[in-house]
Amino acid sequence: MNTRAHIGVTGLAVMGRNLARNFARHGYTVAVHNRTASRTRALMDEFGHEGTFVPAETARDFVDALQRPRRLMIMVQAGAATDAVIDEFAPLLESGDMIIDGGNAHFADTRRREKALRARGIHFVGAGVSGGEEGALNGPSIMVGGSKDAYAVLAPMFESISAHVHGEACSTHIGSDGAGHFVKMVHNGIEYADMQLIAEAYDLLRQVAQYSPAEIAEIFRAWNKGRLNSYLIEITAEVLSHTDADTGRPFVDVVADAAGQKGTGRWTVQTALDLGSPVTTIAQATFARAASGQSALRTAYRPLPGGMHIPKSRSKAERFTSQVEQALYASKVIAYDQGFTMIQDAALAYGWDIDFGAVTGIWRGGCIIRAAFLDRIRTAHKDAPDLVSLLAEPAFAEEITAAQVPWREVVATAARRGVPAPAFAAALSYYDTLRADRLPAALLQGQRDYFGAHTYRRTDRQGAFHTHWAHPDRPETDA
Amino acid sequence: MNTRAHIGVTGLAVMGRNLARNFARHGYTVAVHNRTASRTRALMDEFGHEGTFVPAETARDFVDALQRPRRLMIMVQAGAATDAVIDEFAPLLESGDMIIDGGNAHFADTRRREKALRARGIHFVGAGVSGGEEGALNGPSIMVGGSKDAYAVLAPMFESISAHVHGEACSTHIGSDGAGHFVKMVHNGIEYADMQLIAEAYDLLRQVAQYSPAEIAEIFRAWNKGRLNSYLIEITAEVLSHTDADTGRPFVDVVADAAGQKGTGRWTVQTALDLGSPVTTIAQATFARAASGQSALRTAYRPLPGGMHIPKSRSKAERFTSQVEQALYASKVIAYDQGFTMIQDAALAYGWDIDFGAVTGIWRGGCIIRAAFLDRIRTAHKDAPDLVSLLAEPAFAEEITAAQVPWREVVATAARRGVPAPAFAAALSYYDTLRADRLPAALLQGQRDYFGAHTYRRTDRQGAFHTHWAHPDRPETDA
Repeated sequence: MNTRAHIGVTGLAVMGRNLARNFARHGYTVAVHNRTASRTRALMDEFGHEGTFVPAETARDFVDALQRPRRLMIMVQAGAATDAVIDEFAPLLESGDMIIDGGNAHFADTRRREKALRARGIHFVGAGVSGGEEGALNGPSIMVGGSKDAYAVLAPMFESISAHVHGEACSTHIGSDGAGHFVKMVHNGIEYADMQLIAEAYDLLRQVAQYSPAEIAEIFRAWNKGRLNSYLIEITAEVLSHTDADTGRPFVDVVADAAGQKGTGRWTVQTALDLGSPVTTIAQATFARAASGQSALRTAYRPLPGGMHIPKSRSKAERFTSQVEQALYASKVIAYDQGFTMIQDAALAYGWDIDFGAVTGIWRGGCIIRAAFLDRIRTAHKDAPDLVSLLAEPAFAEEITAAQVPWREVVATAARRGVPAPAFAAALSYYDTLRADRLPAALLQGQRDYFGAHTYRRTDRQGAFHTHWAHPDRPETDA
Repeated sequence: MNTRAHIGVTGLAVMGRNLARNFARHGYTVAVHNRTASRTRALMDEFGHEGTFVPAETARDFVDALQRPRRLMIMVQAGAATDAVIDEFAPLLESGDMIIDGGNAHFADTRRREKALRARGIHFVGAGVSGGEEGALNGPSIMVGGSKDAYAVLAPMFESISAHVHGEACSTHIGSDGAGHFVKMVHNGIEYADMQLIAEAYDLLRQVAQYSPAEIAEIFRAWNKGRLNSYLIEITAEVLSHTDADTGRPFVDVVADAAGQKGTGRWTVQTALDLGSPVTTIAQATFARAASGQSALRTAYRPLPGGMHIPKSRSKAERFTSQVEQALYASKVIAYDQGFTMIQDAALAYGWDIDFGAVTGIWRGGCIIRAAFLDRIRTAHKDAPDLVSLLAEPAFAEEITAAQVPWREVVATAARRGVPAPAFAAALSYYDTLRADRLPAALLQGQRDYFGAHTYRRTDRQGAFHTHWAHPDRPETDA
């Protein structure tokens, strides 16, 4: 019997295959298995030379190939496919063994699976793996949920294959059960927001400042040297400077403008609604993708008039560009802050003890939202583990204070000119909502008491009150 | 045995009690039942003289009191309580009997229950009942899902107790299984948006035009005589003109500014995300309530600076007020349009054949969002049953065309002045997104192809394409 593999990977589509190769390249012996064995053979043929693989055709062989405690990583479609694989392998495992789900599972499924397997003595580890195919092969960011004991066993392997930033591994234990997949989901939600904000900045520079895609690529390259430095800004410049070979036109002009989505943005917003976390910028980014695909609606709205167009002089265009940089930066800080608030709300709801400095730390490398300013966010979280908001940190507060007037100008200009900037506008509204001394939510409470006797609270004393609206002069009732 | 009741109501909290009284007042014999019999006795003691009630202490007595086919209406908490009541009564029923769920059930639960009961020969009718306590007693709006046969049996009773507008009953068959509860959910989502838009209008008039609550009440009273005429505008004026007896201050200033929510707004947005329906104004309204309750965040953001305040002269304030009316009207049309789009998307997804004219017709009375302009929307839907959008109807298109410049001014002013107007801004962004000739979603697709090989479509030919971003000059792949 062959029991030398340090870890096994089942599900050898591109993500699973690349993770298996990553483990093997780091000196681990990796058992590999796939429902259809041809894929296992293809991996061996093509990449078998990269390290020590143990191909297994049957589930039994696969499990028997693993050292104890067994570390069995499943890399299959989220949902029913994951449950099917768990049901297949769990009966073959022993107490203390581990199943690691490295797919994009919904955190609620991970919570359910962890609980069920814990009752059988099996560690279930929900690991969010970010960075796409390339990250899986060369160093992802790994957000791990499950028991601390399980992570202690897995840490050397995960921290070896993950991305590294300034010598620190981009893998950490986030919290129990679904915490890893939850944080990965929020990461993706932030990614949606980040991409949409960049897209709106591009659109404003194109339509208001009248720059060409190539000129905008240069602006993004310049921004990438400053505080906006990030993977997404970098690749945006690459995409914008690309010319379509067929037509000679800017690539961005030949691409259909209906965006797809994989579902994690949607999950983020749906979960935020359950938690009462107002992730408005992420929501607008998610809905912007949905709106782009509503072709019948777009046809119906297209004839309607927009704002006035006033061409900008070169100097005004340059001034506007600098305002857009401020607006983009401020909105991006808000999007991240919304994500952190959501993680805080979830930690409270699910009893996760989350080290925010560690979360931000592992987002600095390997993943799509890796960005220079995460270094500063990490420092802020390390300095103040209970930080309620990034904007409670003096340096960020100072930057936002400096950015707010141009940010307002950009949102106002978008509104006047008819350039859609839903995520910019949502970020600014969020800022103004939270810093408001009084919100018109008080009026809402009055309305709700009027039509539904929902009662209201008062600013000057405790209790729930109801006004007799048919006779508002009657004393209110202390409900 | 006592088998004379036309209908039975179980669950005699205020909504159930009021519906039972409404049936009785319209000449129906109503069997009444409650888990704790004291509530049944209380109804008999207090309201027994209003009509013919048959009180029942046991489930068996209750069922036996009903004429066949039995019409059994359950008015209990959505969720587990509803399932428990169904489980209790279904075994006592016979083929052809009906269970009507008049609670605020999630439409997916209604679909599940309808399917399960249909298999047992029992009609399950999910009836959305709008109008709160007062509507339940004096005439609600009733949105019915289930089989056409079941509705045919129920129609005379429902159309007798419902609200009436110009002699027409506010009760209709929406579609099969969960269609009634779905439309009721979207109704509530629109209600969230409508209330938030009114609240933002109030806040702008207060902060920008510097009017007092009493002055704003007068403005709303004036608006209520025009195209904005609606129940919500009417009660807003009442709430704003109310003075707190204790303090002598405007009532709205002593109410705590943290809004509650019952969950149907949240369901609307969560479901819209599943359907890909961009209900951004409803989403912002839902999140605005959540944000108002984030007290720690509000404390963190409160010290941050806002926009500049420039006091307005009387004439400028009046001009701004008229702009706000335009913005409110335009945003309200968008909120309704988002709701209709969502119902259209659901009809396609769930196979519901929905008569939009009928839906709009029954919203004209009995329910919280009843409004004069629903008459016009109904006409638009009757004239063009396949209307993609309200804005495809010439009269609405003309109004929005006239409103768009002031609408833009209001959103721009809110941004500049730092008054949070997330729902106004979202409505305008939605308008500009859908009427855009090209959206920056094209850039998003380029980014997604770059980091995740997600492929993109082209404007000039069919197929899914991938660019080799490491060597972008290589021919793209037709995936």
